Amino acid sequence: MSLLFKHFRIHQIFGANTDVGKTILTTALVRATGPFQDADDEHIRRHCGAPQDKVHTDCLYRFHVPVSPHLAAQIAAGGEADKIVPDDTFLNSISSYVRRSASRVSGPAHMYLETAGGVHSPTLSGVTQLECYRPLFLPTILVGDSRLGGISATISAYESLLLRGYIIDAILLFRDQYYRNSEFLMPYFAERGIEVTAVDAPPPKAVDAAENLASTERYYESLNLLPVVQNLDMRHQQRLAELDSMPRRSIDTLWWPFVQHGLVKSEKDVTVIDSASSDFFSVYNAQNAGRSVSSLEAQFDGSASWWTQALGHAHPALTLAAARASGRYGHVMFPQATHAPALLLAERLLHDGPGKDWASRVFFSDDGSTAMEVALKMALRAFSVREQLEGTERKALGVLGIKGSYHGDTIGAMDACAEEGVFTCEWHNAKGYWFDPPTVSIQEGCAIVTLPPALAAVAAKDDYRMNTTNSMSWVYDLTGRLDSPLAQVYREYISHTLDGLEHSGGPRLAALVLEPLVMGSGGMIFVDPLFQRILVDVVRERDPAPSKLTGDWRGLPVIYDEVFVGLYRLGMQSTIPFLGAAPDISVHAKILTGGLVPLAVTLASDSIFRAFHSTEKAEALLHGHSYTAHPLGCEVANEALKLIEKEVRSEPWATAKARWDLDGTPSVMWSLWDPRFVRALSCLENVTEVMALGTVLSIKVNDVQAGYISQSAQTLLQSIRIHDHDTESFASGGVPQFSVHFRTLGNVAYFMTSLNTAPETIRTAEDKIWKALEIKCLAE
Amino acid sequence: MSLLFKHFRIHQIFGANTDVGKTILTTALVRATGPFQDADDEHIRRHCGAPQDKVHTDCLYRFHVPVSPHLAAQIAAGGEADKIVPDDTFLNSISSYVRRSASRVSGPAHMYLETAGGVHSPTLSGVTQLECYRPLFLPTILVGDSRLGGISATISAYESLLLRGYIIDAILLFRDQYYRNSEFLMPYFAERGIEVTAVDAPPPKAVDAAENLASTERYYESLNLLPVVQNLDMRHQQRLAELDSMPRRSIDTLWWPFVQHGLVKSEKDVTVIDSASSDFFSVYNAQNAGRSVSSLEAQFDGSASWWTQALGHAHPALTLAAARASGRYGHVMFPQATHAPALLLAERLLHDGPGKDWASRVFFSDDGSTAMEVALKMALRAFSVREQLEGTERKALGVLGIKGSYHGDTIGAMDACAEEGVFTCEWHNAKGYWFDPPTVSIQEGCAIVTLPPALAAVAAKDDYRMNTTNSMSWVYDLTGRLDSPLAQVYREYISHTLDGLEHSGGPRLAALVLEPLVMGSGGMIFVDPLFQRILVDVVRERDPAPSKLTGDWRGLPVIYDEVFVGLYRLGMQSTIPFLGAAPDISVHAKILTGGLVPLAVTLASDSIFRAFHSTEKAEALLHGHSYTAHPLGCEVANEALKLIEKEVRSEPWATAKARWDLDGTPSVMWSLWDPRFVRALSCLENVTEVMALGTVLSIKVNDVQAGYISQSAQTLLQSIRIHDHDTESFASGGVPQFSVHFRTLGNVAYFMTSLNTAPETIRTAEDKIWKALEIKCLAE
Repeated sequence: MSLLFKHFRIHQIFGANTDVGKTILTTALVRATGPFQDADDEHIRRHCGAPQDKVHTDCLYRFHVPVSPHLAAQIAAGGEADKIVPDDTFLNSISSYVRRSASRVSGPAHMYLETAGGVHSPTLSGVTQLECYRPLFLPTILVGDSRLGGISATISAYESLLLRGYIIDAILLFRDQYYRNSEFLMPYFAERGIEVTAVDAPPPKAVDAAENLASTERYYESLNLLPVVQNLDMRHQQRLAELDSMPRRSIDTLWWPFVQHGLVKSEKDVTVIDSASSDFFSVYNAQNAGRSVSSLEAQFDGSASWWTQALGHAHPALTLAAARASGRYGHVMFPQATHAPALLLAERLLHDGPGKDWASRVFFSDDGSTAMEVALKMALRAFSVREQLEGTERKALGVLGIKGSYHGDTIGAMDACAEEGVFTCEWHNAKGYWFDPPTVSIQEGCAIVTLPPALAAVAAKDDYRMNTTNSMSWVYDLTGRLDSPLAQVYREYISHTLDGLEHSGGPRLAALVLEPLVMGSGGMIFVDPLFQRILVDVVRERDPAPSKLTGDWRGLPVIYDEVFVGLYRLGMQSTIPFLGAAPDISVHAKILTGGLVPLAVTLASDSIFRAFHSTEKAEALLHGHSYTAHPLGCEVANEALKLIEKEVRSEPWATAKARWDLDGTPSVMWSLWDPRFVRALSCLENVTEVMALGTVLSIKVNDVQAGYISQSAQTLLQSIRIHDHDTESFASGGVPQFSVHFRTLGNVAYFMTSLNTAPETIRTAEDKIWKALEIKCLAE
Repeated sequence: MSLLFKHFRIHQIFGANTDVGKTILTTALVRATGPFQDADDEHIRRHCGAPQDKVHTDCLYRFHVPVSPHLAAQIAAGGEADKIVPDDTFLNSISSYVRRSASRVSGPAHMYLETAGGVHSPTLSGVTQLECYRPLFLPTILVGDSRLGGISATISAYESLLLRGYIIDAILLFRDQYYRNSEFLMPYFAERGIEVTAVDAPPPKAVDAAENLASTERYYESLNLLPVVQNLDMRHQQRLAELDSMPRRSIDTLWWPFVQHGLVKSEKDVTVIDSASSDFFSVYNAQNAGRSVSSLEAQFDGSASWWTQALGHAHPALTLAAARASGRYGHVMFPQATHAPALLLAERLLHDGPGKDWASRVFFSDDGSTAMEVALKMALRAFSVREQLEGTERKALGVLGIKGSYHGDTIGAMDACAEEGVFTCEWHNAKGYWFDPPTVSIQEGCAIVTLPPALAAVAAKDDYRMNTTNSMSWVYDLTGRLDSPLAQVYREYISHTLDGLEHSGGPRLAALVLEPLVMGSGGMIFVDPLFQRILVDVVRERDPAPSKLTGDWRGLPVIYDEVFVGLYRLGMQSTIPFLGAAPDISVHAKILTGGLVPLAVTLASDSIFRAFHSTEKAEALLHGHSYTAHPLGCEVANEALKLIEKEVRSEPWATAKARWDLDGTPSVMWSLWDPRFVRALSCLENVTEVMALGTVLSIKVNDVQAGYISQSAQTLLQSIRIHDHDTESFASGGVPQFSVHFRTLGNVAYFMTSLNTAPETIRTAEDKIWKALEIKCLAE
């Protein structure tokens, strides 16, 4: 919803406090700016010093009791809470007003949007102003406080703005000969790149109205804010020039992850992200520069920003958590040291988090890939210690897994994956054996388990399907399926394969490594959970009694890579309730910090930990990264997990879950996406299959040339990336006009929400997806 | 310098603005708290309602002009700037006062330290109050503003405190029936875990002094702040209990990096870090709980927090940068996208940073280890493309390096290192050849190049030494040494070895991987830079013309791992000026973010980049991490690099450099450590050798059992870890009383400063090291 018009410079005016002279300085700015547009007050209209038809002022909401806006609104509403204008309506009306104004002028024009009170004064609904206005992301002028205490007020207000990412283009305040705040503030803010301008204070109010008008007019005439206005104009131009130049400069200097630069044809192929808030990126569109529409467009972050988002972008509570830890600690060197954020996070993960009831230790690292390296080091060592292997035998160990797995891009994590597709490199040396998995999908409204050839041969059929009302949750009802004929097929096949591997001369298997339920990077492959559960069971059953040497893990150490699937991404805190079996080691990242900064953890059971425990330094887990358990990341994670637990108990989650209880039985399978929409999609002609679980929606489109390099899903859904400006300036209610940013994995398009994405936003996204696919269906 | 006494609860009182009632509410708190101690004002003394001998008030600095303290101080100083009390003196006088007070009482007592004006009101010197008091890290009571605009002022003040990590235990403000700020603030702060208490405002001032006294007394009698005081007492107890329990809880849940848990004997072996600021950790010492000394002790961060610190802990500018980016973006999904912090950082690194004049691309990742994996993937691919290798040939490639190298703990980074010492694991498969390096050290005041046996055999001598005045900088003067006989020895030996390797049947070498100058984790091994330079030269000279297929790199792609040694850690922005040769790929992390959050970059020349450039997606560098180029990290890095460039041009750097110009010739070899101290150390009996470069000081102690698991350096220097409380309460001047936290690598103890560590702090640390070693010398 951010607003930026080339021909129409807008600045928002915040006060460091109430009664600091916002209206007077706004008036002075309008006079210095010359013709056009402004908002708020009679005073401005009277003193703007320009022909009335060249200057417009408007006050969109006016209250007559001089108290904080939230109180004024309460008083005006006479105690009826639903008469108070909600924040999003308030914001949309401002946004629409600005858009309409921008579309009415063709030449250069300006607008000053004066806010009420101080930066954190409550709005009508009670949210504070700088939070409420944040989605508009207007560059800001801060009016400082020239009174005693005003230095403090001005700096604090600046910091509050900065905590919300605001661009602050200028600070204005009255000159006070006694307190001389401006003298202190000028160098203070110069060091921070902001120009402070001090202006003479207005004359005392005269008793006589005419004299008052005249003296006020003389006062305005004496001021010269032209340099300030020129500076604002320059900043506006610089910002546009910067945004314009960013694609070219990025193409020339960045080396993007996973991007073939040879396919980046022009500047248009680069997404310039100017800011983000909640579920929306604010994306620069150079095409709009010559038009009367905003150059910044709202784009729904349809991939949850590479699967990291849980609470939306720029969540103030996460920013404050980051600031708090940074301000208290900076860095803490972690070996044999402790600090509250890390300890509390470890305890939370073990006692109330995904490690509950099985894990006893938390090892910190920086990302999913490093945390998987740690997990592998743990598992291989535990196995080696139990089996009392020698050095060379240890080097030859392999892992058991599933084809299509992805555990990150460092070589160790890669080596735990089969070499297939494009995810390989010179030193990738896949070590182990990987099963072709049976997969789950919804096709024509019906849940289907599709068997790979080897399993199909054993089962003597290609797939299993269920046509009852609750068919979609059937596959996730493991208690109902553990004794099914298919379970027996899986059991026999896995046992038989493992028997064969033991005599094959391949690497000795030392760990079972799974991405439970969904192999994300492998192409959003939904693996039959029954297969994974039986895999765990069979591996453990082959080793009847725990070893005395290493405690209670059996068979192979089992690693769950929950980097993508954990922490409610699929609707549950961990995948353990789906599979009904806990791992010995699990790995978590992405959502862990609510999508703000890198941090990862590897959880381990006590028996795994004991494999490293001795009095020999050389037998310790000699792994670490400089920023291990960095306080900022841990504090943000604590805050994120706290907010997430609140979110998952919220009304929208209850409603969404209820919608998926198709036969009245609650299931672990549910989604924020509407089941009717999912079912309908699965019936479209150009859609092969669909799946939805938790926040994830995956759509596989018809394409003979499937695989990672296919462009078919991109092509089919391209239209939803395009912003529709036509209806925008008249938008009402809560949902802004937006296009949809999404990612594809070959012929699979996937969409992912945050845990707190508004239901209306999801419904709108569903409509857009539906229209794009349905129209394509009709056209073909 | 943080203060925390079990028997003596201290709270600092900050105001959301000036004139909000701090003194009145402090008085009320003192009355409710009962006997003891307080600071500031006549008003408190008069109305505290307790026997005079039970309550003390003091005002340490008093000015008579009611303006901001910095102005009052200026006025009192009569324009003589040096008469204004500097911040550290100011702070030390408060700290000493508090310590003396704490030592005078034995039973439970309390102190309220009332500050002046608002949170950001300037102190005497002009630094704002919350910055100035931050090292004391006292828990805080915020007095809110009950007037119009006071909601905003209170929240902003809270946020400013939070940006400095302050613990805020309570908010107090007057009840105002008209503006009702407290009604808004109570739920607002309840959500943030802080109790807001509203108190009746004092009666209007009576004209008659006696009547005034009486009405004020009645007013105080009517207040009941006992619940607030009880809450403060509870928070104090909770904080102590938390600190007390942290070691045990950490031992029970954390899995520390590089730590053998079997060697962690008791709670005392765990360092509890309560906060940190500039170069000091504030460490909890449970032993002090029953004594009249602070339970928190200042410990000089002598390892620069695992080699990450550049500007000190909790630097406000870095916190604000983190907050700014978090508030503006949160996360940005990076493939084919761009945002200002990442782009500006890339441009800075390429145009004014370590990539200047040779690199054209920046690839972002999360830590040194992942960035090295990226570097290796780049180099191996570039080599494979030029040599047109097939799949199996590509897997068999190796690297050329130096023994003792360390590039991180992910398997790929490990595989680029020789398998030696303890840094190994099950999947470590060292691929390549590593030279035994000649090393550099200072022994008995004289610089020595020590040759390993193979080189000594060629040279027919074991070492080279120089006894002139500038002997210490001699080894780093490569232009003077390139034509020396030793250079010829190196050249022949390297050529001969490489010839041999080509016919050895070992892995084909595809990259030269170096930690220039110092191999840190390998044991602070200072490699003779001449050897590394000639290694680069020989490798390149063996390949006379650049390949048409891959542009202008020659021989092997050369990787500089500058994670530890770069970004001024050794006194220069990069190691290129030392070696006189640029790499094709370089890796940077640690200092990159000023020691706040994980972020790493791999820089590459255009010819390396071109090896991946095509129209085939599968040929791209398919590597990435979810938080690649996270805006918070990039913004912090931009801020850190900006501040660092200022720092390296500062007076302390110029002074330190001049001190090392022993014969008047500026050298690339210089250090923040004093050369006389370094030389003297090298002459001690129990010291084998010493080296200093930039911020690093390395001391190898005599030990027959050297190596990573040796404890000799730990034992020898143990005494400097102990805090000396005796002189503390009478400390004056700028340097607080501190002990020294340091790390060892076997028989090597090393010390590392930030780039901006105060010279006085370094001198004090030198004294402590000197005393510890000298006394041990005498004792032996």
